[in-house]
Amino acid sequence: VSVSDRLIKELAGVVGEAHVLASPEAMAPHLTDWRGRYTGRALCVVKPAETEQVARVAALCSAARTAMVPQGGNTGLCGGATPDRSGEAVVICMSRLNRIRALDLINDTVTVEAGCVLQRVREAADARERVFPLALAAQGSCEIGGNLSTNAGGVHVLRYGNMRELTLGLEVVLPDGRVWDGLRALRKDNSGYDLKQLFIGAEGTLGIITAAVLKLYPKPRATAVAWAAVPGPAAAVELLGRLRARFGERLTAFEIIARAALDLVLRHIPGARAPIAGEREWHLLIEVDDHWEDIDLAHAIEEALAAELEHGLVLDAVVARSLAQAQAMWNLRENISESQRVEGYSIKHDISVPVSRIPEFIERAGEALRREFDEVRIVCFGHIGDGNLHYNLSRPISLPDDAFIGQAAAANRVVHDLVARLGGSVSAEHGVGQLRRAELTQYKSPVEMDLMRSVKRALDPFDLMNPGKVL
Amino acid sequence: VSVSDRLIKELAGVVGEAHVLASPEAMAPHLTDWRGRYTGRALCVVKPAETEQVARVAALCSAARTAMVPQGGNTGLCGGATPDRSGEAVVICMSRLNRIRALDLINDTVTVEAGCVLQRVREAADARERVFPLALAAQGSCEIGGNLSTNAGGVHVLRYGNMRELTLGLEVVLPDGRVWDGLRALRKDNSGYDLKQLFIGAEGTLGIITAAVLKLYPKPRATAVAWAAVPGPAAAVELLGRLRARFGERLTAFEIIARAALDLVLRHIPGARAPIAGEREWHLLIEVDDHWEDIDLAHAIEEALAAELEHGLVLDAVVARSLAQAQAMWNLRENISESQRVEGYSIKHDISVPVSRIPEFIERAGEALRREFDEVRIVCFGHIGDGNLHYNLSRPISLPDDAFIGQAAAANRVVHDLVARLGGSVSAEHGVGQLRRAELTQYKSPVEMDLMRSVKRALDPFDLMNPGKVL
Repeated sequence: VSVSDRLIKELAGVVGEAHVLASPEAMAPHLTDWRGRYTGRALCVVKPAETEQVARVAALCSAARTAMVPQGGNTGLCGGATPDRSGEAVVICMSRLNRIRALDLINDTVTVEAGCVLQRVREAADARERVFPLALAAQGSCEIGGNLSTNAGGVHVLRYGNMRELTLGLEVVLPDGRVWDGLRALRKDNSGYDLKQLFIGAEGTLGIITAAVLKLYPKPRATAVAWAAVPGPAAAVELLGRLRARFGERLTAFEIIARAALDLVLRHIPGARAPIAGEREWHLLIEVDDHWEDIDLAHAIEEALAAELEHGLVLDAVVARSLAQAQAMWNLRENISESQRVEGYSIKHDISVPVSRIPEFIERAGEALRREFDEVRIVCFGHIGDGNLHYNLSRPISLPDDAFIGQAAAANRVVHDLVARLGGSVSAEHGVGQLRRAELTQYKSPVEMDLMRSVKRALDPFDLMNPGKVL
Repeated sequence: VSVSDRLIKELAGVVGEAHVLASPEAMAPHLTDWRGRYTGRALCVVKPAETEQVARVAALCSAARTAMVPQGGNTGLCGGATPDRSGEAVVICMSRLNRIRALDLINDTVTVEAGCVLQRVREAADARERVFPLALAAQGSCEIGGNLSTNAGGVHVLRYGNMRELTLGLEVVLPDGRVWDGLRALRKDNSGYDLKQLFIGAEGTLGIITAAVLKLYPKPRATAVAWAAVPGPAAAVELLGRLRARFGERLTAFEIIARAALDLVLRHIPGARAPIAGEREWHLLIEVDDHWEDIDLAHAIEEALAAELEHGLVLDAVVARSLAQAQAMWNLRENISESQRVEGYSIKHDISVPVSRIPEFIERAGEALRREFDEVRIVCFGHIGDGNLHYNLSRPISLPDDAFIGQAAAANRVVHDLVARLGGSVSAEHGVGQLRRAELTQYKSPVEMDLMRSVKRALDPFDLMNPGKVL
């Protein structure tokens, strides 16, 4: 038997034959990323159900010097969980490792396995009057291991931080099959290097996260959602500062939606209606939450926005009067990507700059793009409260997809060069994967690239973990 | 000239002769730690004033294969900034590198150099209606570089997190003198490994932090401070959960003070008075803050505590009626260490366990210590809201200091074995330094020690950075 046949057999010995997929049909769902941009090949897909099985799988792959590609819900946006085209890697699908191991209501923590779907963790918390605050469009299918490996963000980062800030401990299978038990449920631990930080956001290139201890928060009991039109991005960030000063941590979401993005949703999503009348260019979706039931947040945010209307920082605003109205506002925001997809190919950017540089970024990026690309349609929206924009370009009506795709590299260059000049990042929350890998070396200093490579070599000396991603 | 004489001369060429200290008298303040537990020797103490000077100092030391010991305000509690006894290391005192480089009120960030005293950063924020929330006893003399290198905690971690959570970017001089410019002011950045996490909490063993971008928060406008007596630690953590559910992020501090700790303060600090009458065993200091000026927090916390008094979770409580009263309550908490010092040597522990295990820890640690050590005086207090206790032992009245010091290793063993069994940490917020170094190998798994050593070797292959600390 060949070396690879023997490995497949050994893997089946660990997880059971039913959980090693080797036929093209069975493997197919695991070999293409969610957006359909990347398709790879693999020796097989293996589905362990326990940490100890993951460890044995890794040990076998390591002994055979075979690459491993950890995969969660396969909802990543950068091809980070898709194997390369060599056909030599083993995809390790973590979806069967999906238990909620413990829920500690006094410590406010939940211990979950990597294959847990985010929505299940959110529901488990909700059932006990807690909130696990990570919230993003893919939450019905993305898995905790992927959320950790990409340091996922979403719409509540403003208040609760990224996945990194929500994590207290990790259990990780190292490339050689050893298990690092860092599954601590501590809010403070300064006993040496904080190793979990290495694996969070490493996109599976340093090891395989198998479980995590995550923070829970008490469930807010009052919520208000408002929609506001503002004169422009500068007014938006100024309003952000005013609302932060007034509402403190209650300010849970602060999203910007440019007119073009809103129009797409109104055009393509049945039942979608603009919350405010008139042709406004810049819109904000604002959410505030509180733990006091007896507080009238709707009144408070209305009052605050009314005061800013008098100062000219707000042009118009409306506060949701019901949960249904609030949900309708959120649906406008959440359906932008879907609406964009209907109109053909789009060139997406997931950038961040300091919040104070957002207005300059939007102005200069728009100018530069309009100068170089005729009829470019800029679809700008996102987490302006975090300095993070999904700055997307939709295919011009007159241009076929192919021609537009040909412009992607040049458009990326325009946008990302500006991001770099403004001290920003070319990947705010989606990660690097395959999509941004080549650009990293362009925008990061040689010292930084060298440090990253040193870390990679130290933890994965044979380059077995998710090769071709990040570095 | 000898190799070391030549190095001293070269260093003087970089920072100026006045800023290289080589006489025993001039060096003395830099060679003993704040608690007076460790005294080392050094080739010289060098005081750079700019990042570029730090880089050249590191390059010279590296070329000469000479160890470097970064030092900030020298207020550390574990001997992490004190050189070993070889006399071969260069102490790099960062205190002259003390500019506030930038303050961005829209991004809510401040960019500061490592030698900035914490209090100055707090005041700079305060002057602009912001708060930099790190607050600890040494804030008048500790420096940001030390706060970063020890991932400092303090009394507001419950709401704002440790220094790690307060940091967006770092500038670091690597052991070979290269500068890593990671001084990003971004709330989201997933473009590769989050390298700053390596240096935060590394106690100067991986590089020299020269500057940082730190988060600011809007300044709270309403505050209430309360003192409560509770039946015991189990009631304390249950009350914590109830108050978190009611007050959310407003709950800024939640400190426990055992009777023995309070008694020390009442005995030794002039003017100190117990906030509530009677012989209560367990006390809590509680602070809530809000951004709404028009909210009556004092009334709200009083109401909440009164309700718990009826349920028996609280035995007695009082809410500060003035800033002076609030300050008096805080002084009781802040003077415990000082009062303890008056009564002679003490064996200190800075432990954490999951908040839910705190009651079990306190009960079992007390039992075990009383079994093994006659007349042991347990002085238990600290950040129970974070699961972090300063679990100290004061010298029994009848025992001379020397005999008590002889018991330290055995007492540590009793306390830390229990901490390990409860999934805790032997250093919650003070770090490892020299004090806990030997214990790390006892309480961490071989896999974890091996990972830490791999990281150390990758970044500091010649073991030049702060040798003999942490690892």
